[in-house]
Amino acid sequence: MSTTSSVEAKKGKHFETSIFPMLSVRNGDDAIKFYESAFGADVLSRIDAPDGPVVAKLSIEGADFWLADESPEHGNYSPQTLGGSTVRIVLVVNNPDSVFERAVKAGAKMVWPVADQEYGWRVGRVVDPFGHHWEIGKPI
Amino acid sequence: MSTTSSVEAKKGKHFETSIFPMLSVRNGDDAIKFYESAFGADVLSRIDAPDGPVVAKLSIEGADFWLADESPEHGNYSPQTLGGSTVRIVLVVNNPDSVFERAVKAGAKMVWPVADQEYGWRVGRVVDPFGHHWEIGKPI
Repeated sequence: MSTTSSVEAKKGKHFETSIFPMLSVRNGDDAIKFYESAFGADVLSRIDAPDGPVVAKLSIEGADFWLADESPEHGNYSPQTLGGSTVRIVLVVNNPDSVFERAVKAGAKMVWPVADQEYGWRVGRVVDPFGHHWEIGKPI
Repeated sequence: MSTTSSVEAKKGKHFETSIFPMLSVRNGDDAIKFYESAFGADVLSRIDAPDGPVVAKLSIEGADFWLADESPEHGNYSPQTLGGSTVRIVLVVNNPDSVFERAVKAGAKMVWPVADQEYGWRVGRVVDPFGHHWEIGKPI
């Protein structure tokens, strides 16, 4: 059964339910470069529209997310346009301290530092240059 | 090697890199009920602060996400407060048409219907009563 499912998945016949955030940004091209530098993200796919907008799928060590240039006419707003963010990204990693430090060195701004929290996580928060907030941590 | 890693993971010593969106909402309690109804979400964990705010981890058939009552004083804004959303949620499912239909019946509003898109996905988009946008689909 499990082998059959796996084969079907490869054929594109079955998709496991999964969730990926798609971040709206100003200047998708710069955002891709930032996430490569800050989180060591790999670009899995990228579509550049003739008039400039970028849609890309990125992966941080196998954890995938999307980003796209904002398009307010389609209801996709960057945090810079709205003056805040409506979804924060929880990035679970094995080494929150080093991942956090790298992100800050790459240009993310610390919101609060990595520390053991009373709710049982070691976690800190940054806001990236595009206005998206990341909580970088793991359960302890 | 792989067995050792697996054992360590169970002990909580190693965390695979993973990404979860955390949706800021007005009225987290209502939002949990909506996502249960619209997407068949299960509540994996829930913390109710004494003064009302809720933080919960939900799962849609094993695909996890978080939600929390907004707290603008901490930089967490609901789409209702900002008048738009900065991150849309890509929900990959095996049956986009039926998942979409269920969500609309539960109170989500169609933005555009499920259809085969030129970029190789069968996908539609809804906005939920809390202002979050969901693209429900799968690659074809």
